[in-house]
Amino acid sequence: VSQRVRSEAEIIDTYLRPLAAGHFGAFDLSDDCAVLAVPEGQELVLSMDAVAAGVHFFADDDPADIAWKALAVNVSDLAAKGARPVAYLMSLAFPEAPRHDWLEAFARGLAEAQRAFGIALTGGDTDARPGPLSITIAAIGTIPAGRHIVRSDAHAGDILFVSGTLGDAALGLAMRKDGALADTWGLSGEQTHALAHAYLRPQPRLGLAPALLRYASAAMDVSDGLALDLQRLGRASALGAAVSLSSLPLSPAASRAVAVDPSRWNEIVAGGDDYEILAAVPASLTLDFVAAAAAGGVSVTEIGTLDEGGDVLLAGLDGAPLRPPRAGWDHFAH
Amino acid sequence: VSQRVRSEAEIIDTYLRPLAAGHFGAFDLSDDCAVLAVPEGQELVLSMDAVAAGVHFFADDDPADIAWKALAVNVSDLAAKGARPVAYLMSLAFPEAPRHDWLEAFARGLAEAQRAFGIALTGGDTDARPGPLSITIAAIGTIPAGRHIVRSDAHAGDILFVSGTLGDAALGLAMRKDGALADTWGLSGEQTHALAHAYLRPQPRLGLAPALLRYASAAMDVSDGLALDLQRLGRASALGAAVSLSSLPLSPAASRAVAVDPSRWNEIVAGGDDYEILAAVPASLTLDFVAAAAAGGVSVTEIGTLDEGGDVLLAGLDGAPLRPPRAGWDHFAH
Repeated sequence: VSQRVRSEAEIIDTYLRPLAAGHFGAFDLSDDCAVLAVPEGQELVLSMDAVAAGVHFFADDDPADIAWKALAVNVSDLAAKGARPVAYLMSLAFPEAPRHDWLEAFARGLAEAQRAFGIALTGGDTDARPGPLSITIAAIGTIPAGRHIVRSDAHAGDILFVSGTLGDAALGLAMRKDGALADTWGLSGEQTHALAHAYLRPQPRLGLAPALLRYASAAMDVSDGLALDLQRLGRASALGAAVSLSSLPLSPAASRAVAVDPSRWNEIVAGGDDYEILAAVPASLTLDFVAAAAAGGVSVTEIGTLDEGGDVLLAGLDGAPLRPPRAGWDHFAH
Repeated sequence: VSQRVRSEAEIIDTYLRPLAAGHFGAFDLSDDCAVLAVPEGQELVLSMDAVAAGVHFFADDDPADIAWKALAVNVSDLAAKGARPVAYLMSLAFPEAPRHDWLEAFARGLAEAQRAFGIALTGGDTDARPGPLSITIAAIGTIPAGRHIVRSDAHAGDILFVSGTLGDAALGLAMRKDGALADTWGLSGEQTHALAHAYLRPQPRLGLAPALLRYASAAMDVSDGLALDLQRLGRASALGAAVSLSSLPLSPAASRAVAVDPSRWNEIVAGGDDYEILAAVPASLTLDFVAAAAAGGVSVTEIGTLDEGGDVLLAGLDGAPLRPPRAGWDHFAH
């Protein structure tokens, strides 16, 4: 077991400073503030999300995975706006002084995520306090000025798309809690790994940015489960939608899981942690949108149409209306 | 006792949304991201700091004071860079669903701070998790492009200034822990209130911005105690300094406290929570700096000169070198 760090300066100097190297306005993390110049014709997109041990990840997860996820969930918000990630601020709260090997792996995971997402650490703070390890990140991206995409600009008749596949992370979490599930569901080793990986290493859909900026009328990332996030998008635009489970994109592993145990549809629609993108696209532009998404390396699936109705309705495989027992994540609802 | 809120949406809709009203890119907090346009010729200054119950404030403090302090400590970082506050993101972590009256007071304190500092809420997130109530804020300000002030640009011969008075907040905290101290020190009611207020409601020195931008070679806010922050500024610029306790600006209340109990000098130099500004100013510009500070409504006091020596030395009232028992706040050093 490696030693615990003995000062905040040690954490910053040894592990965090390299993550800011070469990023001008970070001043090597030696200052209280960072400076950021925004290129002409661009404006900023800002997102802030926290992850905490026991809530968003397990305290004994690989620190590199924890780091990746903390950054990925923020970058996913930027991706949903078609933004190019630029820089992030990070506030770390440790319940006790962390060990060197933990920090080494954590910094490695951040470095991997930074490379994958094209973003650099530019500032933040580090505290010791009781409670779970928590990582709060404010991520900053840029979009062409005036080209922001919000939840509320969808129109009736727009087609709903979702990127990638749904439910993999939630099923990965279920497997994490019950090691026998992979066998119960009859998953291959590769499928088992895919679900675990989806939970630990969400992939923000940055490749979708050009397609979103060009064709989407509204977009958001799916982080709290499709059922809840679809409802949010519908409400923000004062629209309804009917979406059938049969239209939802599933991975081979998730398809197996719900075939064996249909109650697992709950993970698919309400499990959360998908970090896929839900977008509304005018019907006349869907072919262009799909082509632009493919050009960015992201598959998108049509899942329904926005309508003037007031509600977002999910229909089961039999066509009957479905009310998931828990419609996604709300931290205060019980 | 008022009811607890029942959902995250209730917190946002009822208490936080009004704090974002009229700020375009906040989209009424209805989106995952905020958008911010930066005026031409300006660049951004970014700061992120967290405060937590039991570490930075008391859980039973007036929620309006907690809110003020959470925002003030971040705006203080902007003030030290001469920045104009623009917007902030806030991540709230509640150990349990907060009560309506708590949130009402908290939002009121934020509204007061927003008005005082000229800043608006533009986004963030709200979580329930174990551990102390914590409030993490990322504050965004603007400065004229290329005019950033860092810790590390001071030169030998520059004069060190500090704004306002030192130690009031730390003495206020000491009084908070020991109700008899005000009597021990022989403070008037007004003096007692002044110290308590300094702890609860730090005042970022935004009025110093024009003076800093025009005349300072380096600046930072004094948040972890003058002894430690002076050392940081000296090290960042590879300079030393000799500073005498006798030069430090004290309030009438603090003067009384150290007159009665000289061990209270420890609070003055190492107590932290001052949120005053430490600035280095070329010797030829000090009169202009003082005048510009006064024009901004901020008093500044000369406390020493930066020199080529490697160390920052504090001298006691008798002129002998002083080593405070605890040189400011480091969350991991014991």
